[in-house]
Amino acid sequence: MLKTYFRRAQPGLCLLFAALIGATAFAETAPVFPDADASDPAKLGWMIGAPPPADRILRFEDGSYFRFPALRWSVSHFRQLMPTTNVSRGLESPVALPAALRSDIDRLRFTPLDTKTPMSWEQSLAATYTDGILVLHRGKVVYERYFGSLKPQGQHAAMSVTKSVIGTLGATLVAEGLIDVNRPVKDYVPELAKSAFGNASVRQVLDMTTALDYSEDYGDPNAAVWAHAQAGNPLPKPADYQGPRTYYEFLQSVQPEGEHGSAFAYKTVNTDVLGWVIARATGHNVAQVLSERIWSRLGAEQDAYFTVDSIGTPFAGGGLNTGLRDLARFGEMLRNDGRVNGRQVVPASVVEDIRRGADKAAFAKAGYSLLKGWSYRDMWWVTHNDHGAYMARGVHGQRIYIDPKAEMVIVRYASHPVASNSANDPVTLPAFEALGKFLLEHPQK
Amino acid sequence: MLKTYFRRAQPGLCLLFAALIGATAFAETAPVFPDADASDPAKLGWMIGAPPPADRILRFEDGSYFRFPALRWSVSHFRQLMPTTNVSRGLESPVALPAALRSDIDRLRFTPLDTKTPMSWEQSLAATYTDGILVLHRGKVVYERYFGSLKPQGQHAAMSVTKSVIGTLGATLVAEGLIDVNRPVKDYVPELAKSAFGNASVRQVLDMTTALDYSEDYGDPNAAVWAHAQAGNPLPKPADYQGPRTYYEFLQSVQPEGEHGSAFAYKTVNTDVLGWVIARATGHNVAQVLSERIWSRLGAEQDAYFTVDSIGTPFAGGGLNTGLRDLARFGEMLRNDGRVNGRQVVPASVVEDIRRGADKAAFAKAGYSLLKGWSYRDMWWVTHNDHGAYMARGVHGQRIYIDPKAEMVIVRYASHPVASNSANDPVTLPAFEALGKFLLEHPQK
Repeated sequence: MLKTYFRRAQPGLCLLFAALIGATAFAETAPVFPDADASDPAKLGWMIGAPPPADRILRFEDGSYFRFPALRWSVSHFRQLMPTTNVSRGLESPVALPAALRSDIDRLRFTPLDTKTPMSWEQSLAATYTDGILVLHRGKVVYERYFGSLKPQGQHAAMSVTKSVIGTLGATLVAEGLIDVNRPVKDYVPELAKSAFGNASVRQVLDMTTALDYSEDYGDPNAAVWAHAQAGNPLPKPADYQGPRTYYEFLQSVQPEGEHGSAFAYKTVNTDVLGWVIARATGHNVAQVLSERIWSRLGAEQDAYFTVDSIGTPFAGGGLNTGLRDLARFGEMLRNDGRVNGRQVVPASVVEDIRRGADKAAFAKAGYSLLKGWSYRDMWWVTHNDHGAYMARGVHGQRIYIDPKAEMVIVRYASHPVASNSANDPVTLPAFEALGKFLLEHPQK
Repeated sequence: MLKTYFRRAQPGLCLLFAALIGATAFAETAPVFPDADASDPAKLGWMIGAPPPADRILRFEDGSYFRFPALRWSVSHFRQLMPTTNVSRGLESPVALPAALRSDIDRLRFTPLDTKTPMSWEQSLAATYTDGILVLHRGKVVYERYFGSLKPQGQHAAMSVTKSVIGTLGATLVAEGLIDVNRPVKDYVPELAKSAFGNASVRQVLDMTTALDYSEDYGDPNAAVWAHAQAGNPLPKPADYQGPRTYYEFLQSVQPEGEHGSAFAYKTVNTDVLGWVIARATGHNVAQVLSERIWSRLGAEQDAYFTVDSIGTPFAGGGLNTGLRDLARFGEMLRNDGRVNGRQVVPASVVEDIRRGADKAAFAKAGYSLLKGWSYRDMWWVTHNDHGAYMARGVHGQRIYIDPKAEMVIVRYASHPVASNSANDPVTLPAFEALGKFLLEHPQK
């Protein structure tokens, strides 16, 4: 009943949610999509006009907003579609991002993993439906481009990049002693005692080695992800709705499947649980804590924001939206061992912990064919490549890529028609690696 | 049918809308309300906790959020309740608001118009359920206090203060020649040709001397204001709903009553029409134009935002939310003849036009007993007192008060239990006048 209602009346949220937390089902059935230029939201005129033409109006309630190519507009306008809560930047002056733009990056060539046909960096932007991309090298902006609906003064959905931000926040509270990473989740959230999370340690949640009966298979109408999505839907519930009404209610219903600690299994609910633990350990929700601990200390230009459920709970698993330049500041802070302008924002030990990564064998069990030899630590994807790079990854192409050896940070917002990163990784992974190598070998003169 | 549904299913929006646009009906039936301290939203615990206690959860859909004392929380959290659109501050460093705080203001005494019992400035804050108040004298912050849910890094509903901001924006476009104030509205918005606004001039809209068959009497279940509210409701409409679905659709239904130009009649729809004219004249909605023309040039610390209808139309008549300190920057810009740090943001001729006011006889026909001798120009309330003060006024106590002679700007956000300003004017009017006189006579040493 719940599911039937949901799929009938709220396809939009299904699609949104699928995208936010990492749907893979779309990839298999994807038709040929219009290219980046043909799907440019400004050219297509979504939501332009007073009023916009009827066939160019996008509404949260009917789901049209999250079908490609409309989603190319929506990812830069979540706030206009649903209720949200701010992550304040504070009131101070932003910390400057000095520019030293380079014209040679566009010509950089690399070989995609799938086609094996060499491509230029500039071509990779359209190939990945980039909305905005910024590269910092040694702290200076060497590359910055915007497309589609995104502008420097705008916010874009970070999708599951949210998880790495929340993971960093959680690890910070662990380092400060506010959260004991070895204690079971139920010590912080007694309501979760009877769920799969009750006896999982905070460390297992942080590294997603919990063993959960929770399917994110969007092809399966019985998958738990649908109930999760409906629980978090901020719209009024139908009168006959009997299911969980909030993220917190849903989390209590997740049951175990197997034993915690042995295998990495990427499941969004872990980050929602971490968000709950953070809220209980601090007395404030993740939007407030992120502002207090990190965002207001980054020298950010803009407030960030979270989408919320019907009781104002920020969607810790995928609801963050930020300016591209502020996401770059976040990445650069980590590259600088947690410091901004010499001030420690995140403990250096947290950054070391992320960089060190986790158990590669546990990660391998998840079977990512393009991510061999990687691990997952504190909700970051750790490449273990020879540059020591680590990534935040969100569906439709959202990325933070930190390459310590090359002293480089790449942030990218995108609206690739296929949610799963397996669709853009064949271009993204070699492109980012190539740029790190290029900047290492050819620093600015 | 429309109305019946609305009052049955969406009491929250009724209350909100009534408040946003200037309800007076509540005043007559108001019971005794808990005082400012007893209704403090932090003490009452609205939306605090993960999750909050069931009786402390506020939702847009059920209307609980806008009943006193819950509204004391909600006016600082509209964004968390409904979809919104940003008014970007830009990306630059804020323009400083230098502080020169004075401790003598709290002891200033004045006589309220109703009780005739002298009161101190400090006592006036609680008496008017102040959430935040800031006083600039000669460009320096001499007084700044926060209560309730409002913090310096937060936004509060400006309610009908929005109108004065939009009026300033409209007058700016008139001064720049983008809008001809003598042309009829239908020249800009042909869809309004058959409505009351079709043959009204932009000047009549700006000064609210249009003659409209539009009642804002909340005691009347047939008042047009209910249909206006329902049209602008961003929530999904019921399946059998037949009425207008957007602000723009509603405006086309407003019919004339009498002749334009002879009497001031305060009706929110005028500002919505002005917003539409601005959108057509510029190609962008009022949130975008306000950012481009004014907000990004103020040196604001925070983005502001508008609530929107189901197709993303900013609610020009009452949907603006801002930081208190940024509202002060806006007022100070006007006090400085439209300049910020020596840069002209709004033409000086616009500020002169506002200060000069409009026809007092037309204003007198509206019958405001406490506002005798005033006029209404460019959506500002002009006192014509000996300091030449002019005000922006929003229900529940929102204010910008600019006193040119005293070189003073007061901005106040509040959550008075009674929407109508007639409930707080007996304290507010003499308090603000007294402070202007005091600062003029006792400048900082």
